[in-house]
Amino acid sequence: MIGRLNHVAIAVRDLEAASRLYRDTLGASVSAPLAQPEHGVTVVFVELPNTKIEFLEPLGASSPIARFLDKNPDGGIHHVCYEVDDILAARDRLKAGGARVLGDGEPRTGAHGKPVLFLHPKDFNGTLVELEQA
Amino acid sequence: MIGRLNHVAIAVRDLEAASRLYRDTLGASVSAPLAQPEHGVTVVFVELPNTKIEFLEPLGASSPIARFLDKNPDGGIHHVCYEVDDILAARDRLKAGGARVLGDGEPRTGAHGKPVLFLHPKDFNGTLVELEQA
Repeated sequence: MIGRLNHVAIAVRDLEAASRLYRDTLGASVSAPLAQPEHGVTVVFVELPNTKIEFLEPLGASSPIARFLDKNPDGGIHHVCYEVDDILAARDRLKAGGARVLGDGEPRTGAHGKPVLFLHPKDFNGTLVELEQA
Repeated sequence: MIGRLNHVAIAVRDLEAASRLYRDTLGASVSAPLAQPEHGVTVVFVELPNTKIEFLEPLGASSPIARFLDKNPDGGIHHVCYEVDDILAARDRLKAGGARVLGDGEPRTGAHGKPVLFLHPKDFNGTLVELEQA
């Protein structure tokens, strides 16, 4: 069911410092920052040959990343995102298997403009898992 | 400098349960468990089309994963691994940039039989980073 690893998301306190680190010290290709107020984050993409790293910096008072950074002051890996061909079929299969889908269980439009769902970390080895329609 | 994302490592308490979850519920291709006593872990590889997820279960009394699981009882993402063409050149560049290399700074033979180094999470957005010679 799951396909490619679309990205690994890393929450950071300082997007500019994180971008500099990956660009200058690790020599990676790093995008310009992109504000996504509807998701409460500003995002930078690190393009690797086979997948992406996404840096997430809190944007606005109710950012979902702010609480994570309170608990992880240095930042940290926030979630992994797997692609699926059919997000509704994936959701139904997961729910039938007893996994909890976060929110109301309906896909939302994610940071890449595609339908996404998040799965409960307690059901996935302590890992927040995003599913994105491929 | 960094190339492909070689893998994302997830520490798990129960390798069999994690394997079943990814194989049966997420429909992924999952390897048989591989004991690596020299690294204090038993490993399972989840093969995705573009990269791998590695499950790490503690093996032996002094497993480096045991303490992580004490702090993260449900498991969690333990590290990311980037490939580099020349691990000694990468190390020297990183040290010149002020990043801390864990241990004595000399590459060890990693879980895939190739030279690896680990970088200090405090210098990399709270993320433990492994570099592996490609």
